[in-house]
Amino acid sequence: MSNRFGTVFCVTTWGESHGPAIGAVIDGCPAGLELSEADIQEKLELRRPGTSQNVSPRKEPDRAQILSGVFEGITTGTPISIVIYNHDVQSGPYEAIKDVLRPGHANYTYLQKYGVFDYRGGGRASARETATRVAAGAVAEKLILLHGIQITASVETGAIEEAMQEGDSVGGVVSICVTGMLPGLGQPIFDRLEADLAKALLSIPASKGFEIGQGFHAATMRGSEHNDGFDEHGPTSNLAGGTLGGISTGEDLICKVAFKPTSSIKKPQATTTISGQPVQFSLPPGHRHDPCVALRAAPVVQSMVALVLADHLLLNRLSTTKPLALWR
Amino acid sequence: MSNRFGTVFCVTTWGESHGPAIGAVIDGCPAGLELSEADIQEKLELRRPGTSQNVSPRKEPDRAQILSGVFEGITTGTPISIVIYNHDVQSGPYEAIKDVLRPGHANYTYLQKYGVFDYRGGGRASARETATRVAAGAVAEKLILLHGIQITASVETGAIEEAMQEGDSVGGVVSICVTGMLPGLGQPIFDRLEADLAKALLSIPASKGFEIGQGFHAATMRGSEHNDGFDEHGPTSNLAGGTLGGISTGEDLICKVAFKPTSSIKKPQATTTISGQPVQFSLPPGHRHDPCVALRAAPVVQSMVALVLADHLLLNRLSTTKPLALWR
Amino acid sequence: MSNRFGTVFCVTTWGESHGPAIGAVIDGCPAGLELSEADIQEKLELRRPGTSQNVSPRKEPDRAQILSGVFEGITTGTPISIVIYNHDVQSGPYEAIKDVLRPGHANYTYLQKYGVFDYRGGGRASARETATRVAAGAVAEKLILLHGIQITASVETGAIEEAMQEGDSVGGVVSICVTGMLPGLGQPIFDRLEADLAKALLSIPASKGFEIGQGFHAATMRGSEHNDGFDEHGPTSNLAGGTLGGISTGEDLICKVAFKPTSSIKKPQATTTISGQPVQFSLPPGHRHDPCVALRAAPVVQSMVALVLADHLLLNRLSTTKPLALWR
Amino acid sequence: MSNRFGTVFCVTTWGESHGPAIGAVIDGCPAGLELSEADIQEKLELRRPGTSQNVSPRKEPDRAQILSGVFEGITTGTPISIVIYNHDVQSGPYEAIKDVLRPGHANYTYLQKYGVFDYRGGGRASARETATRVAAGAVAEKLILLHGIQITASVETGAIEEAMQEGDSVGGVVSICVTGMLPGLGQPIFDRLEADLAKALLSIPASKGFEIGQGFHAATMRGSEHNDGFDEHGPTSNLAGGTLGGISTGEDLICKVAFKPTSSIKKPQATTTISGQPVQFSLPPGHRHDPCVALRAAPVVQSMVALVLADHLLLNRLSTTKPLALWR
Repeated sequence: MSNRFGTVFCVTTWGESHGPAIGAVIDGCPAGLELSEADIQEKLELRRPGTSQNVSPRKEPDRAQILSGVFEGITTGTPISIVIYNHDVQSGPYEAIKDVLRPGHANYTYLQKYGVFDYRGGGRASARETATRVAAGAVAEKLILLHGIQITASVETGAIEEAMQEGDSVGGVVSICVTGMLPGLGQPIFDRLEADLAKALLSIPASKGFEIGQGFHAATMRGSEHNDGFDEHGPTSNLAGGTLGGISTGEDLICKVAFKPTSSIKKPQATTTISGQPVQFSLPPGHRHDPCVALRAAPVVQSMVALVLADHLLLNRLSTTKPLALWR
Repeated sequence: MSNRFGTVFCVTTWGESHGPAIGAVIDGCPAGLELSEADIQEKLELRRPGTSQNVSPRKEPDRAQILSGVFEGITTGTPISIVIYNHDVQSGPYEAIKDVLRPGHANYTYLQKYGVFDYRGGGRASARETATRVAAGAVAEKLILLHGIQITASVETGAIEEAMQEGDSVGGVVSICVTGMLPGLGQPIFDRLEADLAKALLSIPASKGFEIGQGFHAATMRGSEHNDGFDEHGPTSNLAGGTLGGISTGEDLICKVAFKPTSSIKKPQATTTISGQPVQFSLPPGHRHDPCVALRAAPVVQSMVALVLADHLLLNRLSTTKPLALWR
Repeated sequence: MSNRFGTVFCVTTWGESHGPAIGAVIDGCPAGLELSEADIQEKLELRRPGTSQNVSPRKEPDRAQILSGVFEGITTGTPISIVIYNHDVQSGPYEAIKDVLRPGHANYTYLQKYGVFDYRGGGRASARETATRVAAGAVAEKLILLHGIQITASVETGAIEEAMQEGDSVGGVVSICVTGMLPGLGQPIFDRLEADLAKALLSIPASKGFEIGQGFHAATMRGSEHNDGFDEHGPTSNLAGGTLGGISTGEDLICKVAFKPTSSIKKPQATTTISGQPVQFSLPPGHRHDPCVALRAAPVVQSMVALVLADHLLLNRLSTTKPLALWR
Repeated sequence: MSNRFGTVFCVTTWGESHGPAIGAVIDGCPAGLELSEADIQEKLELRRPGTSQNVSPRKEPDRAQILSGVFEGITTGTPISIVIYNHDVQSGPYEAIKDVLRPGHANYTYLQKYGVFDYRGGGRASARETATRVAAGAVAEKLILLHGIQITASVETGAIEEAMQEGDSVGGVVSICVTGMLPGLGQPIFDRLEADLAKALLSIPASKGFEIGQGFHAATMRGSEHNDGFDEHGPTSNLAGGTLGGISTGEDLICKVAFKPTSSIKKPQATTTISGQPVQFSLPPGHRHDPCVALRAAPVVQSMVALVLADHLLLNRLSTTKPLALWR
């Protein structure tokens, strides 16, 4: 059950990089939301491969189809099934390297855990699965936008071109700012808003760190510096990054995710085969990868944040016996 | 349902700082584990208030009682209920400040969300609830130790004494190292080991950031630097911090949590009352707080890591049709 | 995690018959509900042992204490912990029979499953655990009553007195009628209202069957007889028993639960010890049991129905993007 | 999240009767199970419409495709996505009756709950969704068969032919017998084996009752009649129907489900339109329905039982610290 995300706005994703298709099922989207395939397509375009020289040249139209849950342009409260068929699948190049333990890759751990691994294109461990997060996130974004909540993501990274020329890759940081936040989102004590965000974002391939507000910098501060005061409109500053006690204050939600450099590089690296034979491994010609995973991760980060907020927006309807006053 | 943690080794905690008691119920601990109240008490001592001048002077014996689930010193597979009665409750001082929106505190957001708040001692938002995490974590630690897994936590912080003298507080970072790790723990794609750790640790009051392995530093590295190679024994380095693709490699698990400085300080701060009247607020005499929350958070961090690992250890039993070979 | 019930109004129960206490934690009760220990006590009195000659003579005051989640008589949205200490515990008589596989009892299966069993008083398998269901159900009943929903339970059984005199026991049927129902409760397709009721009621010790509406009689009917028509006020009859497609119609909810005769009887029965030695077993003097479990099950049935309805009442808040119109 | 079933062997289904497709995603099937589309197809044939005159003449090839989770004929531990495209969709006839509140149908309650309803072919409330239960159940059956567990279903019904000629329908009862049961399956106290079975079976459209063992007949019995004794091989009889205390004894699992007569009939019935206008409604020519829903429900019942058993088989791996001895 580890391929589902969310408590009441609940998404299950499936699919391997080189299988026939990938997809997502959203179980728990309220009835009455306007939704079209174009809404989803628009978001998918943002992470689609083959759109610039800085991202993987895999040519995927990434055409999302809605197979259920929408009737006459409106969600019906039943599960929304979205499928994206894989087209530009070139599994041939993977045959040659299927027995190599690739540095920084998951084939080692999948084999340890499951005893079997669909190595073609990285199988389930490929970043390709993130397309289904974006598809589901598009629906979540429409829902939170009804309440005026908007998410923006930006990326900071190093010298990509230079690294590419050397057959290498770089890491990066994706920053999120959510405006139009409502107070009251977040479910103490374990499903705090920042806890669910941290889980959501650390579930993205290649992510290595999460911060909210001042993050690790807060550890070097004093209380008198870090505390946000209040006036009659609410908090007078937002060093906290938008939550207190795990519940949103209504201020902007500010968080960051760190991504490691892409593991697949052309520079040779020392490793072994599955059976323990030492080999020098470098990505053979014909393999397609992003020199900076953070670039394409930005829309994925945005989607995961949308999924968390949609879930918490709904959960917050359960907080009180008389919830009307709390709704906006 | 946001006061429970874990999928199959599942803990529900309850209780307010100044209520009659706090407690935890563990639902899903396997039968056959040796367990005594002394096992729990030993861990509780590590976070107990009143043990040094750098932590809160509240005098709590924190005596844990096991009310169910253990028979003749052995767990029976039924829920383990642990209760800790509150003794040194001094709610009087809170009366005077109950209408103040305290900077950095959760009374603002709890009121926004629930319309009611048990302000005495911080109620449910008090760090006192973390005692129940430690109690439950003690059981989890016993379980993972059966498999040879051990957790150590260390704290790095600033000039506490100096800050105390100025009526201020400091932040800090808690570092975790888990040895004796088994490969195969972690449930892709959403319940990755690092994702569940991130959630666990960001659910602790005052936490602001999480890193695994190189964390944010990884964002500045190149793939050729960051990738861990393999030899016949497994990974030859551990910059990843112990996971690949969300599954443990068997290497040490290395992660960090950032804590903000304690919000309760004696220095005056500008804020308002609930009704919007501006006030200068400083913690009145008689209030008891830690100048550095990270110090007492260390055993809590350790407990949350234990809860995550116990859960994943059990979940891993479900990975294959013939799991025997995978068990250790 | 099998000791919790409910999706968003979520109850975890714990405790053994002869342990120090039993209890329940309600996680997900909305803030703002008036609640006192007297509310719970009133319901507990209905199932309390020792109140007539037809039920077990065990003398339990069954005094419920609320340890958290209520502040100044109002629920706060945090977990409500309820504890009932066990007083009249007489484990002595169980020593003598602890090695007997008691006909109709769970010690056989608990030993098979867990390898260990707290045999004193039946441990976790004792009907004593149902007191915690009633305690939690009392809270649920208060919540649904806010919306005008009321539950009544009635029992039909055989010749109890005669059976008692022969050292035997009888079965019975508990019938439920819920008035003031709202339309729209129930979550297709798996969490249909009748499916969750069936689970709730078959989770009660000694239950063997469940019917809604015409139940098994419906299997002998024709469509033209069984179908309920509609007029401008809704359904014109209620053979369905209050649901269509797993969702409440607004008509009364009508269901039934069958209970087997109490397993503990004084008549001798052929069985073996755990080690396989044949024995004639009859309940020794000093053991206390109900000659008809259905009698005391009635308030338990009522409580489980309340828990299901409270859960579904809250879940229904998530059905649409504009739920206001649906609320009552 | 009400379209998913199972705790660790977890199935999410989706799709409307007249949408482009229906499907199921299995999240939690262990790696290492041999699985082909033929395995699924074989089970689907058992419930397929158009195979005799006693079932709906809708001509659906019901061709299941596996889109993920299987590699070289073996499950990989990743989600198994199964899709069945709808072919013989004739929504035209539904246009004419879309505003009628059909007796015994769910359009009334779906509209009450969601405010919108995909009326074509009954949408999500159509029995067509049960094809996806059968597809998922086929995988579950393969898993439990590894352990020697087998399920058989049989149907008892009335005079179908006669009812058909009168434009009417009949109800029926499906009986289940599971052989090769292992002791120890079932998770007290709420996820008792019979509780989960009851939920599973009452979640099937048109089901109205559930019994295990003697069911409602047990309510008329005495303890001395109903109790199963033990000898050195286990229980000496099986009136309990295969469980004690919610845990399987190892004896055959015996249960029954009652189905109401099909709601769609050709006989005229008094009802109203959505706007409250009285109408005489009879199923217009061109509509296709089963005169006895129980007939086609039998393989669905069998599939739901398989899903419950697969789930509990896996859950039982979590029962003890040393589970090896319990595995078979």
